[in-house]
Amino acid sequence: MNFSPSQKSKDYLSRLRKFMDQHVYPIEHEFTQYYKQHNSSGNWKEWTEHPKLERLKELAKEAGLWNLFLPDNELGQGLSVLDYAPLAEEMGRVYNAAEIFNCNAPDTGNMEVLYHFGSDDQKKEWLRPLLEGKIKSVFCMTEPDVASSDATNIETSIIEDGDDIIINGKKWWSTGLGHPMAKLAIVLGKTDTSKEKHKQHSMVLVPLDTPGVEIKRMQNTFGVYDAPAGHGEVHFTNVRVPKKNLIMGVGAGFAIAQGRLGPGRIHHCMRCIGAAERALQLAIIRSGTRQAFGKPLAKLGGNSEQFAKARIAIDQARLLTHYAAWKIDEHGVKNSMTEISAIKVVAPNVLQEVSDMAMQIHGGAGLSDDFPLINFFIQARALRLADGPDEVHLRMISRLEFKKYLS
Amino acid sequence: MNFSPSQKSKDYLSRLRKFMDQHVYPIEHEFTQYYKQHNSSGNWKEWTEHPKLERLKELAKEAGLWNLFLPDNELGQGLSVLDYAPLAEEMGRVYNAAEIFNCNAPDTGNMEVLYHFGSDDQKKEWLRPLLEGKIKSVFCMTEPDVASSDATNIETSIIEDGDDIIINGKKWWSTGLGHPMAKLAIVLGKTDTSKEKHKQHSMVLVPLDTPGVEIKRMQNTFGVYDAPAGHGEVHFTNVRVPKKNLIMGVGAGFAIAQGRLGPGRIHHCMRCIGAAERALQLAIIRSGTRQAFGKPLAKLGGNSEQFAKARIAIDQARLLTHYAAWKIDEHGVKNSMTEISAIKVVAPNVLQEVSDMAMQIHGGAGLSDDFPLINFFIQARALRLADGPDEVHLRMISRLEFKKYLS
Amino acid sequence: MNFSPSQKSKDYLSRLRKFMDQHVYPIEHEFTQYYKQHNSSGNWKEWTEHPKLERLKELAKEAGLWNLFLPDNELGQGLSVLDYAPLAEEMGRVYNAAEIFNCNAPDTGNMEVLYHFGSDDQKKEWLRPLLEGKIKSVFCMTEPDVASSDATNIETSIIEDGDDIIINGKKWWSTGLGHPMAKLAIVLGKTDTSKEKHKQHSMVLVPLDTPGVEIKRMQNTFGVYDAPAGHGEVHFTNVRVPKKNLIMGVGAGFAIAQGRLGPGRIHHCMRCIGAAERALQLAIIRSGTRQAFGKPLAKLGGNSEQFAKARIAIDQARLLTHYAAWKIDEHGVKNSMTEISAIKVVAPNVLQEVSDMAMQIHGGAGLSDDFPLINFFIQARALRLADGPDEVHLRMISRLEFKKYLS
Amino acid sequence: MNFSPSQKSKDYLSRLRKFMDQHVYPIEHEFTQYYKQHNSSGNWKEWTEHPKLERLKELAKEAGLWNLFLPDNELGQGLSVLDYAPLAEEMGRVYNAAEIFNCNAPDTGNMEVLYHFGSDDQKKEWLRPLLEGKIKSVFCMTEPDVASSDATNIETSIIEDGDDIIINGKKWWSTGLGHPMAKLAIVLGKTDTSKEKHKQHSMVLVPLDTPGVEIKRMQNTFGVYDAPAGHGEVHFTNVRVPKKNLIMGVGAGFAIAQGRLGPGRIHHCMRCIGAAERALQLAIIRSGTRQAFGKPLAKLGGNSEQFAKARIAIDQARLLTHYAAWKIDEHGVKNSMTEISAIKVVAPNVLQEVSDMAMQIHGGAGLSDDFPLINFFIQARALRLADGPDEVHLRMISRLEFKKYLS
Repeated sequence: MNFSPSQKSKDYLSRLRKFMDQHVYPIEHEFTQYYKQHNSSGNWKEWTEHPKLERLKELAKEAGLWNLFLPDNELGQGLSVLDYAPLAEEMGRVYNAAEIFNCNAPDTGNMEVLYHFGSDDQKKEWLRPLLEGKIKSVFCMTEPDVASSDATNIETSIIEDGDDIIINGKKWWSTGLGHPMAKLAIVLGKTDTSKEKHKQHSMVLVPLDTPGVEIKRMQNTFGVYDAPAGHGEVHFTNVRVPKKNLIMGVGAGFAIAQGRLGPGRIHHCMRCIGAAERALQLAIIRSGTRQAFGKPLAKLGGNSEQFAKARIAIDQARLLTHYAAWKIDEHGVKNSMTEISAIKVVAPNVLQEVSDMAMQIHGGAGLSDDFPLINFFIQARALRLADGPDEVHLRMISRLEFKKYLS
Repeated sequence: MNFSPSQKSKDYLSRLRKFMDQHVYPIEHEFTQYYKQHNSSGNWKEWTEHPKLERLKELAKEAGLWNLFLPDNELGQGLSVLDYAPLAEEMGRVYNAAEIFNCNAPDTGNMEVLYHFGSDDQKKEWLRPLLEGKIKSVFCMTEPDVASSDATNIETSIIEDGDDIIINGKKWWSTGLGHPMAKLAIVLGKTDTSKEKHKQHSMVLVPLDTPGVEIKRMQNTFGVYDAPAGHGEVHFTNVRVPKKNLIMGVGAGFAIAQGRLGPGRIHHCMRCIGAAERALQLAIIRSGTRQAFGKPLAKLGGNSEQFAKARIAIDQARLLTHYAAWKIDEHGVKNSMTEISAIKVVAPNVLQEVSDMAMQIHGGAGLSDDFPLINFFIQARALRLADGPDEVHLRMISRLEFKKYLS
Repeated sequence: MNFSPSQKSKDYLSRLRKFMDQHVYPIEHEFTQYYKQHNSSGNWKEWTEHPKLERLKELAKEAGLWNLFLPDNELGQGLSVLDYAPLAEEMGRVYNAAEIFNCNAPDTGNMEVLYHFGSDDQKKEWLRPLLEGKIKSVFCMTEPDVASSDATNIETSIIEDGDDIIINGKKWWSTGLGHPMAKLAIVLGKTDTSKEKHKQHSMVLVPLDTPGVEIKRMQNTFGVYDAPAGHGEVHFTNVRVPKKNLIMGVGAGFAIAQGRLGPGRIHHCMRCIGAAERALQLAIIRSGTRQAFGKPLAKLGGNSEQFAKARIAIDQARLLTHYAAWKIDEHGVKNSMTEISAIKVVAPNVLQEVSDMAMQIHGGAGLSDDFPLINFFIQARALRLADGPDEVHLRMISRLEFKKYLS
Repeated sequence: MNFSPSQKSKDYLSRLRKFMDQHVYPIEHEFTQYYKQHNSSGNWKEWTEHPKLERLKELAKEAGLWNLFLPDNELGQGLSVLDYAPLAEEMGRVYNAAEIFNCNAPDTGNMEVLYHFGSDDQKKEWLRPLLEGKIKSVFCMTEPDVASSDATNIETSIIEDGDDIIINGKKWWSTGLGHPMAKLAIVLGKTDTSKEKHKQHSMVLVPLDTPGVEIKRMQNTFGVYDAPAGHGEVHFTNVRVPKKNLIMGVGAGFAIAQGRLGPGRIHHCMRCIGAAERALQLAIIRSGTRQAFGKPLAKLGGNSEQFAKARIAIDQARLLTHYAAWKIDEHGVKNSMTEISAIKVVAPNVLQEVSDMAMQIHGGAGLSDDFPLINFFIQARALRLADGPDEVHLRMISRLEFKKYLS
């Protein structure tokens, strides 16, 4: 249980902070406004990235702040999950800043899948351009017609047909689907429902321009369309791809999906903690600079106690997340199920509560686009469902508790 | 403490329900989609009402379901606040349905101001077309540069100059500002800061086409622009109107504003309760029709306990709101301060919690535009700030408690 | 839904308040100290009532404040459940004050059982002395070896044997068992487990001096022995009583138990509300008279917001309890299951939270015997289990909700 | 931030667990019953330790499990605060087990005061017998007449008079005052109120048999007298002791008191975490072995989610406590104020909530003396006030937050 940041991690953090101060915070508001004003869910085919984004990505690459998430010395920066934790937290302070460093979901999770489980050909064709930031990708798991929080419910079919496989099904909340650079979907479906329930699934790579792939609509999340990536509904109708597009062959889909979610969940949580820190900072500053009833808000009613409670909640969430990261590094994902589920519940809920409190301190401004608070809130709210709803994670934790004491 | 609905109220409720079933629920989804797809905050000058809305208003008028909020036998339907409570609740089940019955904020509050405090000329010029639904209006109170939850902070100036008055200042979160039919702003400002602090304010009627009135922008609320009415920022620069536009003369503004908020807060709360009932209904139905881990969601984990707690919370909120309505009817706004503040805290918080729970039950669908849950949530979240933030109401209640026991 | 107190109820309340002021508050502390110092669970056979108690009972009888709970004009005072509500609340302000007015549990519930379901002989033998306050009684339902929150689990057997019945089983948490005047136990057990599950139970009157009845021990509740009545464990070993001691014959036990709990739960809740009001009053007074960091506690941190939230919670709990009382009066217990379960959850939880908050405001004194706060807390905590734990009531409510929307 | 237990700590933990299994758990229930039945607050002068306690202490000494709390190689076991953390947690699983290892409050804090600040004579006279477990001691800080959560309120006077000092004042909630072996009080009072407010206090050693020291009463805590140590009220009337009994001379009292509370608070919190783990364990076991409505309680309603939430809360509290311990070890008490205050709020609240939940799962048994749950609850509830109420710690944390962002 040594959570002390390594020297390497500290160096990266120092450089990342400088980069954020110099390049990211100054442009934060401009980016938000751009996506709000130039895009809407109705015209998603015309969505564009902010014109300055590619330049920022170049700068990040030059600064060696690229693909920080990948624990590979050559392809990434060779940082452990724990090393990466404070970096993800720092990125999380600005909504969507992870994109600048090629550290955004779902690309990170997709790259990890390809890195760990992809064939050499798959890596060459898809992992490389993803690592270079030339293309974007989508992960298609959730389905509209079933409670896919129970992955055994999934209905999309992935059927072998000679040298090909044929995909049929509907997916939604596929993040990144609206991105102008989105080229690849990784699709989870079922091949053989006669098998044991965790051997039925397959995972397959589907280029988005394959015939039969149809984006039905982009979906607002809590009213917000989240350009330029967005979340959308996509239908697969007799989509045919060669068998070599299967990852690890038929029947491996469930296991890959489980593995994919471990570190990915941690990354989300780290970003939540950074966002919560930022929200608390904004709330405190606001409370010191607005007056009501003859006092700064900081001195009114229970406001200061709210700040103390937020400080405690954030510190606890960070420790638990570092602990989970350390445990994954030391003992692997399978032995860290309680911890991964725990932070997956804790971090988004802390962010939701701290954002809500910070909004309240800001008054009407807190609900506006002038501050990043609503983005933080929606990020948290969505994450309480994405990658497994709170309830599924609590269920996992209680089952592991029962095993300790009940036979 | 007789909350039994009067026969008159029951009759209206019966007719209202029929109207909702016949005309409103069937068109609910279509309305939502329309405003999402045809409008964005960037193009607010082109916002339009849904083409079928005016026809619905005509039907409501014909059905005698018009201006239900106004306790006047001729101009309204002569319903008391308590009589109106279940009707407002019923309307609240569909987001923005109150508009169809000319019972939407801020027009209702503005009409009440004109009804109770307006001169004959003011009534003729503005109250009449508002009651007829020919025009829309705006209430300009909140300001961007001060914590206007403390109304004594307000900085907008309303200065006498011969037969005119001149208005200077900035307002934001002015609801309805973007409506194509918006014609009138009621503006609260200060005339004489040397006076006792509750005698400094004046309230003035300002046609929106007066020179010097400039709509700076429409503001997203929690990411949502709320077309066709919207909420916006408006600046007043040397705006000149005749003195007869003052309501009750200089110095009466604070008292009118206080009076305006009493029943208005109740109306909001009633609608919250209707929305919370709807959210609970949707959650229960969803939980009975989706399966995970081999059971309907209704039987998983603590879901059913969540429903029970929601039932309790809603029933308690309704009783408290009816109690407050009854107390206003019987004892007046001034003697009902604890109750008004109490429901103003309770109802939006109950709606926020129940909506959040219902979203969670719906999974990703709960965050989408396919269900009204996010609209209910945002309605609640905004209302926790509008008409006085929770903290100001708790402050009011505790001060009244102290008076009971501490000298 | 007319909760206005009747003139009769108002008259009783006025006289009751006078009585409390004159006779009860002045002796409150003395009573508490007496039971703490002169009794312990080890010496329960020597427990005595406070010497002044019988005199207080005489005064209450003389004042016509006797058996207020019984809705019978002759035997009680002919007050409806709703009429009685504010009286029970008033008594609840002083721990155990209901005893003075012969309105304490479990005697009230037992008297109601005898009143509604007892034979003439049973009434003559047991109801009369109970109504006169000459004897005390016990209700034996909960069992140590099973989760008796599910009454179908009950294991005590009540078996017919010729003209007698024979009782075997263990009961605990039998309130009043240690009282020096306790003479009668009403015992719930099972007669015929082959019957439909709500027809298996019988209820029987067992004089405590019957051979085979053995008090094993008096049980501390949350560390407190609650003299002079106490709660205890009693074993029945081949206890033989005549068949005429059955209430309503074999198989009627479950239905009677259900009926018994309806108004009884309401009474408990009313007393909780009175206790919560008292706790809030004490907290506010304390907060105005103690200084820390240069201010009265009332002005520190979030204390005043706590008071406001307590005010809201208490007012909501009272309204819900009055509503449930009114509904029982108008529509009967069977049609009021949601409301009875709802207040059974709400009222004790509100009292627990308000007492906890009031303790915190009192500092160390709040945990001492110098204030009634710990008694209120323990009363609430125990009541969250007694008469059905929170979870069972939430379960009931959710089942009724499901019936509305799910077939 | 290396929380990995040292090898030394792991060895101690292994031996401590063996000792607990062999000697403590088997006698837990017997000890509880003994103190309940043989003692009451009324007869405190006759209180005795359980006859087997001294033998257990001897065994603990022999096993090298003695004075584990003291970070001194000779006098204690040379364990750091972090080393000690898991040991204190283990002890905390059984109420008052720390006594067996001479690791109980307030003796530990008192020994630390003497160890760090005492003169050689003071150490010889008092520290030695305390370390040997020959005598017990009391810390007199809290006062009945003022809010002593603000230590500047303290009214007890410690006045120089020639070679003596004279003490006058009232103290209450002095833990250990009723112990048959209590010999020494460490008293905090004020010497010179004209000085700067943190230089006014002095701390003085007062043998309990000094004339003028009068134990007025033992105080129940939440109804429980906590024999054989207890908590009591003691008055000092013209108590005269020699000047050499001052610790660090006049004016040093406040600083010593602050220093005393740092590690002491951590110890309390560690024990809370052990108690919470035990409560959760008991709840889970109970839930697996009791049936209601045809299922084990573990499968009913939201029970399993409660367990998962408890697991998360306990794990977070442990991490935060270890972090605070590590920070004290590495950076000293003064630089760990946020962390010390944070765990002082978190740990008792977690224990209160988990105990409350575990009681509810146990039904009536949970409120009885048959399980340690009520002791855990009361320990937590009292600790939310002792060593500074929650509110004072939240105040401290928010002030440190403000310093970060507001000038």
